[in-house]
Amino acid sequence: MKSVLVKEIYRESEKYANQTVKISGWIRTLRSSKVFGFIEVNDGSFFKNIQVVFEEDLDNFKEISKLPISSSIVVEGKLVLTPEAKQPFEIKASKIIIEGYSSSDYPLQKKRHTLEFLRTIAHLRPRSNTFSAVFRVRSIAAYAIHKFFQERGFVYTHTPIITGSDCEGAGEMFRVSTLDMKNAPMKEDGSIDFSKDFFGKETNLTVSGQLEGEAYALAFRNIYTFGPTFRAENSNTARHASEFWMIEPEIAFADLNDYMNLAEDMMKYLITYVMENVPEEMEFFNKFIDKNLLDRLNNVVNSEFGRITYTEAIEILKKSGKEFEYPVEWGCDLQTEHERYLTDEVFKKPVFVTDYPKDIKSFYMRLNDDNKTVAAADLLVPGVGEIIGGSQREERLDVLEKRMEEMELNKEDYWWYLELRKYGGTKHAGYGLGFERAIMYLTGISNIRDVIPFPRTPKNAEF
Amino acid sequence: MKSVLVKEIYRESEKYANQTVKISGWIRTLRSSKVFGFIEVNDGSFFKNIQVVFEEDLDNFKEISKLPISSSIVVEGKLVLTPEAKQPFEIKASKIIIEGYSSSDYPLQKKRHTLEFLRTIAHLRPRSNTFSAVFRVRSIAAYAIHKFFQERGFVYTHTPIITGSDCEGAGEMFRVSTLDMKNAPMKEDGSIDFSKDFFGKETNLTVSGQLEGEAYALAFRNIYTFGPTFRAENSNTARHASEFWMIEPEIAFADLNDYMNLAEDMMKYLITYVMENVPEEMEFFNKFIDKNLLDRLNNVVNSEFGRITYTEAIEILKKSGKEFEYPVEWGCDLQTEHERYLTDEVFKKPVFVTDYPKDIKSFYMRLNDDNKTVAAADLLVPGVGEIIGGSQREERLDVLEKRMEEMELNKEDYWWYLELRKYGGTKHAGYGLGFERAIMYLTGISNIRDVIPFPRTPKNAEF
Repeated sequence: MKSVLVKEIYRESEKYANQTVKISGWIRTLRSSKVFGFIEVNDGSFFKNIQVVFEEDLDNFKEISKLPISSSIVVEGKLVLTPEAKQPFEIKASKIIIEGYSSSDYPLQKKRHTLEFLRTIAHLRPRSNTFSAVFRVRSIAAYAIHKFFQERGFVYTHTPIITGSDCEGAGEMFRVSTLDMKNAPMKEDGSIDFSKDFFGKETNLTVSGQLEGEAYALAFRNIYTFGPTFRAENSNTARHASEFWMIEPEIAFADLNDYMNLAEDMMKYLITYVMENVPEEMEFFNKFIDKNLLDRLNNVVNSEFGRITYTEAIEILKKSGKEFEYPVEWGCDLQTEHERYLTDEVFKKPVFVTDYPKDIKSFYMRLNDDNKTVAAADLLVPGVGEIIGGSQREERLDVLEKRMEEMELNKEDYWWYLELRKYGGTKHAGYGLGFERAIMYLTGISNIRDVIPFPRTPKNAEF
Repeated sequence: MKSVLVKEIYRESEKYANQTVKISGWIRTLRSSKVFGFIEVNDGSFFKNIQVVFEEDLDNFKEISKLPISSSIVVEGKLVLTPEAKQPFEIKASKIIIEGYSSSDYPLQKKRHTLEFLRTIAHLRPRSNTFSAVFRVRSIAAYAIHKFFQERGFVYTHTPIITGSDCEGAGEMFRVSTLDMKNAPMKEDGSIDFSKDFFGKETNLTVSGQLEGEAYALAFRNIYTFGPTFRAENSNTARHASEFWMIEPEIAFADLNDYMNLAEDMMKYLITYVMENVPEEMEFFNKFIDKNLLDRLNNVVNSEFGRITYTEAIEILKKSGKEFEYPVEWGCDLQTEHERYLTDEVFKKPVFVTDYPKDIKSFYMRLNDDNKTVAAADLLVPGVGEIIGGSQREERLDVLEKRMEEMELNKEDYWWYLELRKYGGTKHAGYGLGFERAIMYLTGISNIRDVIPFPRTPKNAEF
């Protein structure tokens, strides 16, 4: 007899009603008396469990009654609709085969565990309700991103992970090497001789695929990346991980407004797709993690995102009368407290802040005519703050070179990036969305360690 | 006036016929006389160019006539169907705006270049016909993989890139570190003190996400990974890269046959999706790269894949009368020459070879009852050889531990992997598809350096 997935039973329960079905899965809860028992089985295909009722007429009734939580079983029986009960249906088991025993020291017992404890059993935590929901949302959200860009003809580009260049001209990086650290080859000047290393030069893990993405946008017009990026920063916060996934679209023949339009469409598509495709998980988050979650997300989908300049934002903040920890002055970087004030108290919806002072932004952002600001825009969202950062890119070779000189970057390291401006450059723009930040936003989960399967943070690379 | 993509014009030329359209793109070729000229423009949205005709009535006729290849332009004009000409339509330009000049030393001139030369300009090569086709196929193929698994309810799982464990108990790895190599902290025994390193232990780049994938399959039942993996092997062949992307599905309550059925379905889906969605690119490969390509791919889609045991394969090879470079004996690893003989001369279609000797396979593969072979299967395809490797996983804790002891693996390093067998293990299976190998197979391109945007190989990490 062929197995059926619990998801299929939930989606088409009428079809299976009063039929004999076969399912397999793991025991989430089991309670039994001397003559019958109930098992909540989760088969991994669906957020919800299915209830199995078994009675003493089973050959192995006693053995089943004593099975530890998380044992895996195969169940055959009749699916009975139970319109009066809490669960919509149950299986009256005619046969239960034990596929794999669990042990009584299974660490995910029914009692509530802290998220901190669950991080120490990252191999088992996806079996809990919370993480089952988080990581299914993560999967569906990743697919929504691909679907959004592919339906619009964007070319998915795998930019390199190991890189010989430091994209942003800054940022702490992880070194990648096969040299023997105890006995590293040295040059005469006392520095390490990386010409003897695997790649013949010093290499690091990428902090962004943007520069390579620009090369591909200038061939394919519209591209996106979606891959892991790395930061070797020793910051132990709830919002920083050493390894995380980023989405970086890059569009040619496009300016800052085109980027903002695209990013707004993408965010709305992403939220809508997730709410439509994993409603059970989203209800769970709304109930147990953040009671305003669905309201907030619906609000985003139905709002037109605000757009103000950095200069306007500074005016608003100064006039607010609020005591900020970091004082506000034109030229300062916006802190989370400032961002939250703008989104949560002023706009009450997502807002793009545009045209930042050039001194607090990267060399590749397009210089505005005022010579003071650049065509950058960050998207701030209520409850979180910045979720997307992007800009129009500097396409004018002379202006770009001047900016690099100002910032003391070595132009030779960027020879190919500069050539993109030499051989038919165009207006172009792009942005980066931190995927984990997006998942935190979609689920209400407040620690980045809880939205990535096996998180890497300072002093932590378990599993 | 709003721009239209060249792809849209090709897909719906009737709709745009005799309308004024606006397009933008890069000049691929330009020839002109004193009174008129032709430009082939590629706008990145589509493999094919669009022809633009311009005449001396343009304000900037002279300037346009002299534009170097790869300059970017914006064209307005009437779309005229040209049923008698080679191209199906052309734009009679009423206005051409120069967006960005190229330079006369643009390295991708019309003459044919070697693939080797094009690798040195990896930032520009996607503007050539060959690489434009390769990397659009790569994007579409990646999407096909996601679509296939998502439609079947598989959970996309991001397994870690930086890892503290060596998954396969073998394989050369890249070390990830932030320690100062000139002055690395030492322990008393003279070894490096990695407790002072960023993660508090020695870390490397992953060679496979399988073990972590298994943990997720035992929660979500059906999962897949799709991410970068790394090999620090000093092998300079056309089939090896130091950084490449892998797809690793893992399925619970499933055995070797379930894996083979899934892999066969996936390969057929992938090929069909690519042939249907980028037919122009596939025709190009069939014409210029491999004249048997489409026949071979169609054959795969329409064949039932063969299945033979390793022992049968050895018999066939021994009886073949062929002189192989590597002699064939039960217990030996199959070499590409053996695999190619089986697929190209015997089966003439893809074939799974199953049940390999345990001594040439990994510790986690399920031991067969003969105690000599394991439930592994490799998929061999005509023209290439091995493209997929997989197995049923050893779910019996005692058998797994015994295998690990035999292979002298440190069980403590695998504590969590062993726990998956302790807390409700199930039959399960999985496989790995090297994404670049798949792209080589789909395009006929014979060097892995030409199917990954910025390849990393020994002594090479440019861009």
